[in-house]
Amino acid sequence: MKLTRKVKEILSWYESDNPGTKANLARILMTGRLAGTGRMVILPVDQGFEHGPARSFAPNPPAYDPLYHFELAIEAGLNAYAAPLGMIEAGAATYAGCVPTILKVNSSNSLSTTKDQAVTATVADALRLGCSAIGFTIYPGSEHQFEMMEELRELAAEAKSCGLAVVVWSYPRGPMLDKVGETALDICAYAAHMAALLGAHIIKVKPPTEAISLDAAKKTYEANPVEVKNAAARIAHVVQSCFAGRRLVVFSGGEAKSSAALLDEVRAIHAGGGNGSIVGRNAFQRPKEEALKLLSDMIEIYRSRV
Amino acid sequence: MKLTRKVKEILSWYESDNPGTKANLARILMTGRLAGTGRMVILPVDQGFEHGPARSFAPNPPAYDPLYHFELAIEAGLNAYAAPLGMIEAGAATYAGCVPTILKVNSSNSLSTTKDQAVTATVADALRLGCSAIGFTIYPGSEHQFEMMEELRELAAEAKSCGLAVVVWSYPRGPMLDKVGETALDICAYAAHMAALLGAHIIKVKPPTEAISLDAAKKTYEANPVEVKNAAARIAHVVQSCFAGRRLVVFSGGEAKSSAALLDEVRAIHAGGGNGSIVGRNAFQRPKEEALKLLSDMIEIYRSRV
Amino acid sequence: MKLTRKVKEILSWYESDNPGTKANLARILMTGRLAGTGRMVILPVDQGFEHGPARSFAPNPPAYDPLYHFELAIEAGLNAYAAPLGMIEAGAATYAGCVPTILKVNSSNSLSTTKDQAVTATVADALRLGCSAIGFTIYPGSEHQFEMMEELRELAAEAKSCGLAVVVWSYPRGPMLDKVGETALDICAYAAHMAALLGAHIIKVKPPTEAISLDAAKKTYEANPVEVKNAAARIAHVVQSCFAGRRLVVFSGGEAKSSAALLDEVRAIHAGGGNGSIVGRNAFQRPKEEALKLLSDMIEIYRSRV
Amino acid sequence: MKLTRKVKEILSWYESDNPGTKANLARILMTGRLAGTGRMVILPVDQGFEHGPARSFAPNPPAYDPLYHFELAIEAGLNAYAAPLGMIEAGAATYAGCVPTILKVNSSNSLSTTKDQAVTATVADALRLGCSAIGFTIYPGSEHQFEMMEELRELAAEAKSCGLAVVVWSYPRGPMLDKVGETALDICAYAAHMAALLGAHIIKVKPPTEAISLDAAKKTYEANPVEVKNAAARIAHVVQSCFAGRRLVVFSGGEAKSSAALLDEVRAIHAGGGNGSIVGRNAFQRPKEEALKLLSDMIEIYRSRV
Amino acid sequence: MKLTRKVKEILSWYESDNPGTKANLARILMTGRLAGTGRMVILPVDQGFEHGPARSFAPNPPAYDPLYHFELAIEAGLNAYAAPLGMIEAGAATYAGCVPTILKVNSSNSLSTTKDQAVTATVADALRLGCSAIGFTIYPGSEHQFEMMEELRELAAEAKSCGLAVVVWSYPRGPMLDKVGETALDICAYAAHMAALLGAHIIKVKPPTEAISLDAAKKTYEANPVEVKNAAARIAHVVQSCFAGRRLVVFSGGEAKSSAALLDEVRAIHAGGGNGSIVGRNAFQRPKEEALKLLSDMIEIYRSRV
Repeated sequence: MKLTRKVKEILSWYESDNPGTKANLARILMTGRLAGTGRMVILPVDQGFEHGPARSFAPNPPAYDPLYHFELAIEAGLNAYAAPLGMIEAGAATYAGCVPTILKVNSSNSLSTTKDQAVTATVADALRLGCSAIGFTIYPGSEHQFEMMEELRELAAEAKSCGLAVVVWSYPRGPMLDKVGETALDICAYAAHMAALLGAHIIKVKPPTEAISLDAAKKTYEANPVEVKNAAARIAHVVQSCFAGRRLVVFSGGEAKSSAALLDEVRAIHAGGGNGSIVGRNAFQRPKEEALKLLSDMIEIYRSRV
Repeated sequence: MKLTRKVKEILSWYESDNPGTKANLARILMTGRLAGTGRMVILPVDQGFEHGPARSFAPNPPAYDPLYHFELAIEAGLNAYAAPLGMIEAGAATYAGCVPTILKVNSSNSLSTTKDQAVTATVADALRLGCSAIGFTIYPGSEHQFEMMEELRELAAEAKSCGLAVVVWSYPRGPMLDKVGETALDICAYAAHMAALLGAHIIKVKPPTEAISLDAAKKTYEANPVEVKNAAARIAHVVQSCFAGRRLVVFSGGEAKSSAALLDEVRAIHAGGGNGSIVGRNAFQRPKEEALKLLSDMIEIYRSRV
Repeated sequence: MKLTRKVKEILSWYESDNPGTKANLARILMTGRLAGTGRMVILPVDQGFEHGPARSFAPNPPAYDPLYHFELAIEAGLNAYAAPLGMIEAGAATYAGCVPTILKVNSSNSLSTTKDQAVTATVADALRLGCSAIGFTIYPGSEHQFEMMEELRELAAEAKSCGLAVVVWSYPRGPMLDKVGETALDICAYAAHMAALLGAHIIKVKPPTEAISLDAAKKTYEANPVEVKNAAARIAHVVQSCFAGRRLVVFSGGEAKSSAALLDEVRAIHAGGGNGSIVGRNAFQRPKEEALKLLSDMIEIYRSRV
Repeated sequence: MKLTRKVKEILSWYESDNPGTKANLARILMTGRLAGTGRMVILPVDQGFEHGPARSFAPNPPAYDPLYHFELAIEAGLNAYAAPLGMIEAGAATYAGCVPTILKVNSSNSLSTTKDQAVTATVADALRLGCSAIGFTIYPGSEHQFEMMEELRELAAEAKSCGLAVVVWSYPRGPMLDKVGETALDICAYAAHMAALLGAHIIKVKPPTEAISLDAAKKTYEANPVEVKNAAARIAHVVQSCFAGRRLVVFSGGEAKSSAALLDEVRAIHAGGGNGSIVGRNAFQRPKEEALKLLSDMIEIYRSRV
Repeated sequence: MKLTRKVKEILSWYESDNPGTKANLARILMTGRLAGTGRMVILPVDQGFEHGPARSFAPNPPAYDPLYHFELAIEAGLNAYAAPLGMIEAGAATYAGCVPTILKVNSSNSLSTTKDQAVTATVADALRLGCSAIGFTIYPGSEHQFEMMEELRELAAEAKSCGLAVVVWSYPRGPMLDKVGETALDICAYAAHMAALLGAHIIKVKPPTEAISLDAAKKTYEANPVEVKNAAARIAHVVQSCFAGRRLVVFSGGEAKSSAALLDEVRAIHAGGGNGSIVGRNAFQRPKEEALKLLSDMIEIYRSRV
């Protein structure tokens, strides 16, 4: 496999990383139908933990089987598949070498009343399961944010020393943020920036809305305006907040929605210079053929010229 | 000993596990009168911890003696015997090699006012006592759920690395759950699924009732109905939530009840595709001969064709 | 030294222990005037920590000197001497090999407002000081009970692996227990049983009263009555709760009281099958000659035929 | 490179440190336009963490790129560049050996409601990234101050053993301090002194105001007056509190302000015997040419004779 | 250097300690003008941490310099000098071998609202700095007392294993104690006894007042009266509570006071059999010549026959 110029450039941004980590980043970037483009579509399946099995899989019952998701990611030509320990354990041998996997090492659930997650897997698990990366969620703004960041520090340092990549889900929430604030532009950019500062290789955030949430930030955005009505401009601001684009950033699909709405979002991500999508429920809650069609449409957008 | 096709199939589901763990799973599945069937009946004796010695053993005083339970499990032809540290230490040498043992490594008690357990034994204990597995209880939904899951992560990782199997008791409770919620169908399926995601080899839950507890789940169950009036259908939904049946799931017997009621439950578990029963008070609180008769009747049901 | 049949039988109950731990149990059981009988009288001196030096030693000032207690235990022909770190350090070399010592590794004090103890010594301390056992207090029912049990788990596992014995003081207290509850029969039996489940070799509890404290237990005791008016029957119930007598259980003397009252208690312990007494203030707060006389009287009772 | 007499004298104050740490202190003191003078100007860029990316970098967008700051520090001839993990990782290889770096190993953010920070990097990170020092913030007076000091103890001990220097940001806050108190003269001197006691090599505090905050201290300052109206005298008091000047102390620039105001502050620091400035927003929020001019003016002041 | 009979006797009390620790105790006891007498005067300088630099050093500005205190201790012929990490680091090489040092490994400050301290240094620090002992404060009665005792357990065990001595500052405070209670006779004796039980080699308490604080203790003191009006008798009771005098106990000087008052206190300590004084503010807040005179007068009292 020969790296494309684009992938070589991206790897050059991670100049402090060891060859093992670079190889795993390259593996993710050189897999699937977007191989070599610097864009990615990733399948995450941790909704069983977050929302329960029925809410996640009943709309498309074959998805109860962990093997289904490996196959979906492979058939769709995605860059990687991310899931918690049990899901990866269930298929890691069968699909060894078929698709890069990201072990989600912390998880929350719908029975929790705190803004925290349990660390449910380790770097050692990722290594024994042949994963290319670990995935970790932080909740910037939560009362537990510092412990979460410290858990990430330990796991990320160990992952990097072992040649793995680190993917950070950065989802702001907590006493200073209402529902609007959690996806406000300033907050989303801040969350992405913190993930970059914490040493993430790939950052996952939600697509930002037009809102500006923190009073302290409003003056700044008035003095240095972002074209907030333009979804691509908002994406570009998040990309800028990821070290001026020197860190890969992907955007989540969120709740199941219409294909048209999702593809509009993808066009904005693409136009704004985002590195791709990480799309779960919109993929596995559809019948497989529909899912493959939608994923293919997304990929086509990312393959097009900006 | 030659593995049956059924047991070989089950072991194939645990494709990420090392040969040591597979051997211990096989040991449990190939022991007793249900050997080779993929079904199990397990004797758990941690009620002395949970409810105190008199409430547990006064109805059948020979059960005060830890050796009694080893003998009961062996004479009844059960698959395994599970108990806390002191109980296993008391007979592990006498009955070495006679019946697979599961070391229950955390425990609560009736004097506690919190929804938590103490970790009272270790993987090193399980190894020195010749156990085949560790057993661990989580309380999904409890204020302590994340710490419990993190304790499980550590113990399970160590157990797996040492060739032991991991049995998870998943008992939902906490601020979002009333008494009905704790055994509601959606909650029971969710609890089983989380245990699977956490990497359990064998999952223990309570038989689910007809209730649906979480508001967020009701819409899902309306759109994708489960035949909740049918006990076997409820069991099948839990089995489905255990990775579409790719993880072993057994059901607890609960409080002492009539043999008829218990056997009805067993028939539903059998019909719904559950992997068996884990039955304590209903076994050791009866005079031994009665207990052997009841356990034999249960086994006969599990040996029958579905 | 040749073990008696009784001691050999007792050691056989500890079938999971290594020869080092068995040797230390044997050392305790084969020392003093009760050597070989399976009964013990132990001198514990942690009251300086619990109540302060003056309340403990002013009634008999020579007892301010740590060497006094070693000598008292030796002269009285007791089985062992238990004390906190500083007390053992002060005489361990002078009396090396003269009497088995039990290092009390956690302690509370009268200035505390919580139901917890500090871990004040380690297994390494016990080894360097030539002790035969560690002693650890748990408060079943306390808000701190789970942490205490987890501390015990760690210390007990390490002690056992190093060939030491483990003595557990099990003193119930906490939000569900009033003063009567703390020494109620059901609670005392429960506390002793939990210590056994946690892997204690020797269990220390207070003599139980006639009360039954937990509502949930009352039905059990009505259906399966214990002769609560009979002190020996109460002791026998506690012995039964210690794995049907397969774990050594000794009873504390409590506050200083008349010799007659104390000897009555000893007679009940003896008649009920308890393994002996652990008596502090009633020993060291008397002038030495009186203490020796009382201890001798106790020993005589334990040496008599039941 | 030959050390100046001044730098040799400064190194002599750190008589307990190993040659590795002395070499890194020398590296910082012998770099840039102030090399050899015992004065320093340091560029810190952790405002992205503290205030978010837009509030930090939107006024001068090239500053979104981590490489910008390395270049600014090098072009301006500064002594060192301090930043969190991700910022250093992004340029550590490109600028290896070009400017001493200080890895900021803990960080807070504007979404936090507690007076604490997360430890976000380690000594191992500093070593693999070729840093000369770690930087750590304490909040003396905060409810979390003792944990922060204990984290510092661990990190500082490890850093020193590995030949790194330790820079401590000492920012008082907490229940006993209002806004005025946080920069009051007595508090600032106290904060600097605590950093020295904790073993810091370089101490960073805010320039003190005229206020005296603690009632208990007022009597002392009345009996032993400091000329509080004189900024240089206030600086001198802080220097005195750093072991009579035997520890390096630098002063932060704070919010962006006019060049004139900043240079006045620098003159006071210089006159009072402070060891220099650590200036972030006032440097990188200006267009680069303006920043270089301002930094040059600062350096000129520090190069002048007092 | 030949040990005196008195010092040999004292060392014999520490019979469980290794030769390294005995040598360091001997070093302290055989240094200065009280060498060989079994009495000590120690200079502690942690007031900069506890009260701030100005309140500590402004009355005598040369004391801002850490070297001043080494010199004061040496010139005055004291037994040892105790201080926090930074203070020892600043002069440990210059004064290596000139005076035994005690590294104070935990510290509080006047900005704290909790009754706790931060652990600010380690045994490894004490070893690399050539110290003879570590010093640790406990607050018996505080809500944090158990954690503090557990920290002490760990540090003391490590110190002893490395041949260092352990000095414990035992200062009672907390919810059960008012200001009077903190220095009451029963409480002071209790605090000293607990330090002894925790394994301290040298115990530091405040001189006790006439008060008896704990209700539970009053009966004891009535039945076994101490001559509370007599300062020497109170000291003797504390000495008795330190294992009947088998542990070294020194008394703090407290706030700066008149020389006459201080010398009266010293006479009582001497007459009551206390092992000496640990005097900070009364020493370093005076001009050096005055301090040397006062320390000399104290030493003369300790050198006199009782």
